Amino acid sequence: MADEHKAFGWAAKDESGFLSPFHFSRRENGEDDVTVKILFCGVCHSDLHTIKNHWGFSRYPIVPGHEIVGIATKVGKNVTKFKEGDRVGVGVIISSCQSCDSCNQDLENYCSKMVFTYNSRSSDGTRNQGGYSDVIVVDHRFVLRFPDGLPSDAGAPLLCAGITVYSPMKYYGMAEESGKHLGVSGLGGLGHLAVKIGKAFGLRVTVISRSPEKEREAIDRLGADSFLVTTDSQKMKDAVGTMDFIIDTVSAEHSLLPLFGLLNVNGKLVILGFPEKPLELPIFPLVSGRKMVGGSQIGGMKETQEMLEFCAKHNIVSDIELIKMDDINSAMERLARSDVRYRFVIDVANSLNPA
Amino acid sequence: MADEHKAFGWAAKDESGFLSPFHFSRRENGEDDVTVKILFCGVCHSDLHTIKNHWGFSRYPIVPGHEIVGIATKVGKNVTKFKEGDRVGVGVIISSCQSCDSCNQDLENYCSKMVFTYNSRSSDGTRNQGGYSDVIVVDHRFVLRFPDGLPSDAGAPLLCAGITVYSPMKYYGMAEESGKHLGVSGLGGLGHLAVKIGKAFGLRVTVISRSPEKEREAIDRLGADSFLVTTDSQKMKDAVGTMDFIIDTVSAEHSLLPLFGLLNVNGKLVILGFPEKPLELPIFPLVSGRKMVGGSQIGGMKETQEMLEFCAKHNIVSDIELIKMDDINSAMERLARSDVRYRFVIDVANSLNPA
Repeated sequence: MADEHKAFGWAAKDESGFLSPFHFSRRENGEDDVTVKILFCGVCHSDLHTIKNHWGFSRYPIVPGHEIVGIATKVGKNVTKFKEGDRVGVGVIISSCQSCDSCNQDLENYCSKMVFTYNSRSSDGTRNQGGYSDVIVVDHRFVLRFPDGLPSDAGAPLLCAGITVYSPMKYYGMAEESGKHLGVSGLGGLGHLAVKIGKAFGLRVTVISRSPEKEREAIDRLGADSFLVTTDSQKMKDAVGTMDFIIDTVSAEHSLLPLFGLLNVNGKLVILGFPEKPLELPIFPLVSGRKMVGGSQIGGMKETQEMLEFCAKHNIVSDIELIKMDDINSAMERLARSDVRYRFVIDVANSLNPA
Repeated sequence: MADEHKAFGWAAKDESGFLSPFHFSRRENGEDDVTVKILFCGVCHSDLHTIKNHWGFSRYPIVPGHEIVGIATKVGKNVTKFKEGDRVGVGVIISSCQSCDSCNQDLENYCSKMVFTYNSRSSDGTRNQGGYSDVIVVDHRFVLRFPDGLPSDAGAPLLCAGITVYSPMKYYGMAEESGKHLGVSGLGGLGHLAVKIGKAFGLRVTVISRSPEKEREAIDRLGADSFLVTTDSQKMKDAVGTMDFIIDTVSAEHSLLPLFGLLNVNGKLVILGFPEKPLELPIFPLVSGRKMVGGSQIGGMKETQEMLEFCAKHNIVSDIELIKMDDINSAMERLARSDVRYRFVIDVANSLNPA
């Protein structure tokens, strides 16, 4: 029994963000809990922001990781949805109040008491640690069934990147608007999944990017219908007013004005990144074209499960580079340069070796 | 017949914005036209912006005015909706292409070929002039029936200010959400009508203002449920996350951050003013609370007619200060200081005297 409390992973110890082996403990599996032996964990840009304290609320040591796929090895007596041996997923959140308006609408992701998978504190005061580790213990309400059709490695990034693009497509009406034109700004972890999921919703998808070298890949590999290079002013001009929706995944500071220009009347711009400074909001296109800009943050548990089923049905997975745990620091350096196609996933079970 | 072409009004001749008597001509009443003898014309903040060329596209001379109520004195042979003697209204737009997506959805106000009532050019090349004048000739598609219950003077501002707040309430879902909480930021021509129309939609309405002296008036005279002074930091703090919608009518540069703070999850901020510089868009509340900010510009003809009927039914009119044509320049000075409760209306028929 005592062994269950012990856990091992890789943690950042300070703002250098350098990750190294770290022994810690998990709580014992409670009546509502599922203990998960971790197989794979995706490397999200938020992991990088957090280990380097870019947002100013990091508390070290931090074991990052919230795109977790594994096997249930123990289930509490109140857990009916899972049994030992089931393949399961754990995403960005592991707790919420279960009683507020948001929770009552299956929007645990907007509950003010929502608890993130790592760099957070549980109600019992213990610090939570993420999926760059061998095992995690999670309340069953925040554990996902991982559909049979989905591979564990390439499916892992769906648990954050996937739901982050899926949820706003549903909320902002893109999923009901087959044939409409979606622009995807930025072609990284989020963007490449937005292309795939947008296509599965029947949208016409154009990738909007600064990097002309991504064109063939966007179209041939990811299935985008077209590609718009932001530095080509003639093509940008020709595309004015042609898009119904834009999903903006760019985290760097950038101008929204050209994106608003691409939108037609009633067009919707959805921001998913977290630029460190406020962006400039151009009022004229907003008012004179009844355009809007909104945000969205991951998704609720019910919708995350729905997204996993949807992706399994449509054969949507992330394009990944599978890495060993030992490679994580160099992977983080590449991620900081956006040098990844399109998501690093750590082969935890086969490469995490307790020292 | 020749008399029909002659018109008389007050025009600004240059960027001083000073208005003075001006003789000009209107087109002859065509087969699709209605000639309107003008009774009253509201004084919109856009009139002031335009005569002083604040937006940089003014072409002088300019007869402003787009909140026009009058009597049909002649109707073309294709006009079946109106007859001579009918009381009618003319608002912000007088033409559109009638064939684009926007026009086909009764959104002439977002047609890229939409023509404003003044400071614009018709397809025949003539400059259009507004309602600070004795007569106007308008295509019947852009003429409104003015419902019996509505007074001509206090009803005139509905044609711009009224539809400008009514349309976004419908589009952004406020009209379907009886009992929800609407904040109205800024208590001027638009704001005071947003309070009245919001109440008629069954919303709980809070006025958000810098001016504590407006509290009694907002509640006792306009019917707001409560009043929030933005300089009272404790009350602002207590109100965090309590509003479902905010209509922001403030044209001066201002911070959106406190307004986003007042919105709850899924809250919607609608901007109706035209600040001269872009505003700062805070990303964190947008993403972490799935909040959005959108714009809206007047309304289509069908919806404007609907709004007039709605206001007649609910006894909604503007609070006005009725002025003579001779008083217009001092009224403009007061308007520039926001010193009007809440709309100047010119008694055109009784005070416009040809020199």
